[in-house]
Amino acid sequence: MIKVGIVGATGYTGIELLRLLWQHSEVEISYLTSQKYAGKKISEVYGHIDYLNHLSLCLFDVNNIPKLDVLFLAVPHGNSHTYMKQLMSNQLKIIDLSADFRLNDSKDFEKYYNVKHESSELLDQFVLGFPEIYRKDLASSNYCANPGCYSTSVILGLYPLIKEKIIESQIIVDAKSGLTGAGRSLKENTLYCEANDNISVYSVFKHRHTAEMNQELGLDTCFVPHLSPMNRGILSNIYCKTISNMDEDEIKNIYKKYYANEPFIKLFFNIPSISTKYVTGTNNCGINFNMMNNSNLLVVHSVIDNLIKGSAGAAIHNMNIMCGFKENTGLVLQSPYI
Amino acid sequence: MIKVGIVGATGYTGIELLRLLWQHSEVEISYLTSQKYAGKKISEVYGHIDYLNHLSLCLFDVNNIPKLDVLFLAVPHGNSHTYMKQLMSNQLKIIDLSADFRLNDSKDFEKYYNVKHESSELLDQFVLGFPEIYRKDLASSNYCANPGCYSTSVILGLYPLIKEKIIESQIIVDAKSGLTGAGRSLKENTLYCEANDNISVYSVFKHRHTAEMNQELGLDTCFVPHLSPMNRGILSNIYCKTISNMDEDEIKNIYKKYYANEPFIKLFFNIPSISTKYVTGTNNCGINFNMMNNSNLLVVHSVIDNLIKGSAGAAIHNMNIMCGFKENTGLVLQSPYI
Amino acid sequence: MIKVGIVGATGYTGIELLRLLWQHSEVEISYLTSQKYAGKKISEVYGHIDYLNHLSLCLFDVNNIPKLDVLFLAVPHGNSHTYMKQLMSNQLKIIDLSADFRLNDSKDFEKYYNVKHESSELLDQFVLGFPEIYRKDLASSNYCANPGCYSTSVILGLYPLIKEKIIESQIIVDAKSGLTGAGRSLKENTLYCEANDNISVYSVFKHRHTAEMNQELGLDTCFVPHLSPMNRGILSNIYCKTISNMDEDEIKNIYKKYYANEPFIKLFFNIPSISTKYVTGTNNCGINFNMMNNSNLLVVHSVIDNLIKGSAGAAIHNMNIMCGFKENTGLVLQSPYI
Amino acid sequence: MIKVGIVGATGYTGIELLRLLWQHSEVEISYLTSQKYAGKKISEVYGHIDYLNHLSLCLFDVNNIPKLDVLFLAVPHGNSHTYMKQLMSNQLKIIDLSADFRLNDSKDFEKYYNVKHESSELLDQFVLGFPEIYRKDLASSNYCANPGCYSTSVILGLYPLIKEKIIESQIIVDAKSGLTGAGRSLKENTLYCEANDNISVYSVFKHRHTAEMNQELGLDTCFVPHLSPMNRGILSNIYCKTISNMDEDEIKNIYKKYYANEPFIKLFFNIPSISTKYVTGTNNCGINFNMMNNSNLLVVHSVIDNLIKGSAGAAIHNMNIMCGFKENTGLVLQSPYI
Repeated sequence: MIKVGIVGATGYTGIELLRLLWQHSEVEISYLTSQKYAGKKISEVYGHIDYLNHLSLCLFDVNNIPKLDVLFLAVPHGNSHTYMKQLMSNQLKIIDLSADFRLNDSKDFEKYYNVKHESSELLDQFVLGFPEIYRKDLASSNYCANPGCYSTSVILGLYPLIKEKIIESQIIVDAKSGLTGAGRSLKENTLYCEANDNISVYSVFKHRHTAEMNQELGLDTCFVPHLSPMNRGILSNIYCKTISNMDEDEIKNIYKKYYANEPFIKLFFNIPSISTKYVTGTNNCGINFNMMNNSNLLVVHSVIDNLIKGSAGAAIHNMNIMCGFKENTGLVLQSPYI
Repeated sequence: MIKVGIVGATGYTGIELLRLLWQHSEVEISYLTSQKYAGKKISEVYGHIDYLNHLSLCLFDVNNIPKLDVLFLAVPHGNSHTYMKQLMSNQLKIIDLSADFRLNDSKDFEKYYNVKHESSELLDQFVLGFPEIYRKDLASSNYCANPGCYSTSVILGLYPLIKEKIIESQIIVDAKSGLTGAGRSLKENTLYCEANDNISVYSVFKHRHTAEMNQELGLDTCFVPHLSPMNRGILSNIYCKTISNMDEDEIKNIYKKYYANEPFIKLFFNIPSISTKYVTGTNNCGINFNMMNNSNLLVVHSVIDNLIKGSAGAAIHNMNIMCGFKENTGLVLQSPYI
Repeated sequence: MIKVGIVGATGYTGIELLRLLWQHSEVEISYLTSQKYAGKKISEVYGHIDYLNHLSLCLFDVNNIPKLDVLFLAVPHGNSHTYMKQLMSNQLKIIDLSADFRLNDSKDFEKYYNVKHESSELLDQFVLGFPEIYRKDLASSNYCANPGCYSTSVILGLYPLIKEKIIESQIIVDAKSGLTGAGRSLKENTLYCEANDNISVYSVFKHRHTAEMNQELGLDTCFVPHLSPMNRGILSNIYCKTISNMDEDEIKNIYKKYYANEPFIKLFFNIPSISTKYVTGTNNCGINFNMMNNSNLLVVHSVIDNLIKGSAGAAIHNMNIMCGFKENTGLVLQSPYI
Repeated sequence: MIKVGIVGATGYTGIELLRLLWQHSEVEISYLTSQKYAGKKISEVYGHIDYLNHLSLCLFDVNNIPKLDVLFLAVPHGNSHTYMKQLMSNQLKIIDLSADFRLNDSKDFEKYYNVKHESSELLDQFVLGFPEIYRKDLASSNYCANPGCYSTSVILGLYPLIKEKIIESQIIVDAKSGLTGAGRSLKENTLYCEANDNISVYSVFKHRHTAEMNQELGLDTCFVPHLSPMNRGILSNIYCKTISNMDEDEIKNIYKKYYANEPFIKLFFNIPSISTKYVTGTNNCGINFNMMNNSNLLVVHSVIDNLIKGSAGAAIHNMNIMCGFKENTGLVLQSPYI
């Protein structure tokens, strides 16, 4: 049993981490922080949580971290880069779910997040948390930058085709996310009455996750995200062109080559009508694709649960690898569908 | 054409008033206020509104009211009682959609709203805005207190039976409201992710509208409200006992006696399964009932659109009566259903 | 006052036509048919409808059409082409909301709908119901083929750019529709539990409306539709490339050139985050666009209410033109937003 | 490891059983039937299920049951009583999730279900599946009648007060259920567009589960169910009167006396605003209550997930007891909340 902590335990990502870690057989949760609710029990913030009542939420103090094996940072972007050096002086593994250490080049961070990166010299100690791509690096690292939710759906959806160099350099991504992606902070556009019975486009061509996609795919991504009226789930349609004409079986074989043994990639090649429900509640990324007749145009459909594969579940998968646990520990989840 | 103004034009009640008044053939909207958005056009706050762009939202100043025929107050409870006297020094009709002048006895106001009523001497100048009950008084009054949304569904649902004195003195009301009833203020429980796929009970036996119900019905109401995951609509089940055994036809006849000619009461006696959709988008109150076999127990089902019959529509109905317009002017609305 | 009838009055399009025509000042509804509910009153099928109770739903019989000025066909695809000739022997205007007379070339119909067109010789008597494109033709025609809902959003969204010949020949359309688009027929994927909290892609590159888009735009459309968990609304993102670099103002000016005086086109150029709610409940098509920096890639966002501008409202707009009424008669609608 | 089978594996209850049993450490699923999809794999019916692909769905044939330890019947009401005798000739434990063996008196069955019970002589071999009430009987029985979803919420909510004889004999229950309660059969009122943004009352005072409530509680229940726009969850408000005045602590103590050690009862006495989300995704029944001041009126709020505690989860809990497994095996579930 290892001891883990969560900084930012009361946001949506925080309580999903809590739920999944609570059922993880190798983990004891022993440290929870909250800026807003410090001093309370978690059950006083979320009435449905009746475990962990021996713990009180405390204020995060980088100079006063208890003895832990793994610390998860479920904090807003732009925080952890200011205190990471101090935090790393503790003997622990760190999994940062914020964006601060995802981009290799601090200039990209500064461009997309409008703030100078105060720990750019630490960036190369962080491995981007894609087991499917960086499994070996993760296994030998103490520091993981957990990728963004949209980025996860897009990068995993396209990675095999990119590795095989069969895609032209500009892609279009039209992605739809549930509202948990917007977090628990209070804004008018995430009120029930405004999001219900409504689909809206936002941050067209400007969303910050674009930087991750471009970095990992080496492409120029035209990214258009949406809020869709549902709690969880991302469906990303990735429109791209193959550099030469290929048939469906060639594409399928490429996916199988990379993903046949991946525990959390599901190739839904037999399903004509993919939907987010196929993966909500699970740590899976579901992928299929369609080709336009008489054309080299391809649309890849990639679905994830933004709070699991797009965040808390991926973080636990990364922890499992970094700690040498069986990869699917705590992540054997089946979608309830209804 | 009369000139009307709305104090608090950017809340959910405010924009519903705006939408309905904009289509009212006897009305010109000439004054809109907003605390939060003063200085902006309404279209800068709500992108879907492309009319009234000659008006700017201004700060409400009770000492500087323009010349108007009717002023609607779509403000939170506990405000208008502090400035009503000053406001009434203008020559205009006032329709107050807040709770401040609904209760005849200022002690009730102080008990339920926890604040001393600063204009209790004005209370008897206000007519409670139920055309079905106080039509004549409204026609001769300049001041109307528009009733609460829950109260509307309950009082109209039971009024005929009360007038005929056939109901025992304690009733139970189990009511479900859409989220617009909670307004546009930012709270965690009205975020999409928390209200979606969820029904919750709140303010059990303590909701403030209970005071209106008890006042108008002369009963002791056990009132239990809920938030149901939908934008609009209230369904109130009113459980009561008849003082003697009565059959269904006797009850139906009582309703017909009072409501047969009411333009906005729909008796859905032939519909076994009443639902809020029968009235959403309209100014109607839909009513039917069921009797328990071999018992004097009765449940009355009453449905309204909380933003129309429960608020903005009722206010316009009251204005029509106070101004001598045809009662249904601007209120000929059919439910879209889907 | 003209007399109108609706064939297929009890589907979702049928009851929306009914609701809007009921409030139309120049129209008397005098004939309603239903295969499933013939013999009943409309109020027996939809409890919320309490008007038109002097009419009974009857079986459609092409040999026995009463005297009418306008007949709306709100029927499934593949029906009206079998009886249109006979129907046209009556003296009346016909507005066919099905797909049977939308495509100029019967070969396209046969390709997309898998059935031989039995009235191909009549196709050129039908004007496709886009007032923005074919206003003059509509004014002098007795026969209108009302366009498809997806097609409406896409064709209107791109029409000015096509007319100005500034778009390359292949476009990608990623469109999201509410569930009313799937109609009232019983299928598992339109059950509440399966559509709720879910977004799904379907008919990728194969949807029948693609034929209309290609015909009207003269392009090769890669069309990907989705079911989004909401009742109404379509949001279409149209990804296209300008043939030369253009700036935003040039594009805006093109839209203004074509649409500045259109009563039902709203150019939302100042709204960064367009959403279906801006137009649900109205006959408007809302349009804005974003350009990718340093690129000739453009995404046009087009939103409509699929049951109004995408169907019943457009049909009434067409009727108004065909009958010489003021264009917006019966269509002055403002979105309730919440 | 025991071998289990599910008759009716493709309904909503069937796939929830499948999901939960798949993760149950003592169980191997070896037999699945479906009337509609016999011959297919489960993954061909539900694309999200990628396990159990070595099994084919078969037609249920009571004369040809494979060797099993436990058979779950997830079938519509009115079936199993016709073949139960034959089924019991096999050596296996049976858990019937339908209503056929819930009522002790076949006359009640015939009254509520309108069909003669063909196996009334077997009724006393079935134990009603409430571990909280009949744990000992279940431990020694081979046959379990799993209770109805509404009944579960009401009976568990009131059971301690009934045992202590402090409740008057007539109660009112106002209950709200998510749409999964209506199953997967195709009906217009369960289409997305009709259930969305709508709450409706149905089967007032006539719902069949009333028979179970009256039997177990020995009361006269006035039961009013609703469909609330959500997938899962039941919230039942139980209005009752105590026979003498009691204070809140006395009531709390009664609940604690019966439920303090129950693994799946959660007493939410500190939560003012109970909601279905506190228990969705879990096998818990959450209970709290409110008392009306100066009155003996009490409202008990009882929430469950209708597909788990109200159906599949309870069935597994019963199996665990009948088979001597640890009670919470396969049922350690935490609500995702969002």
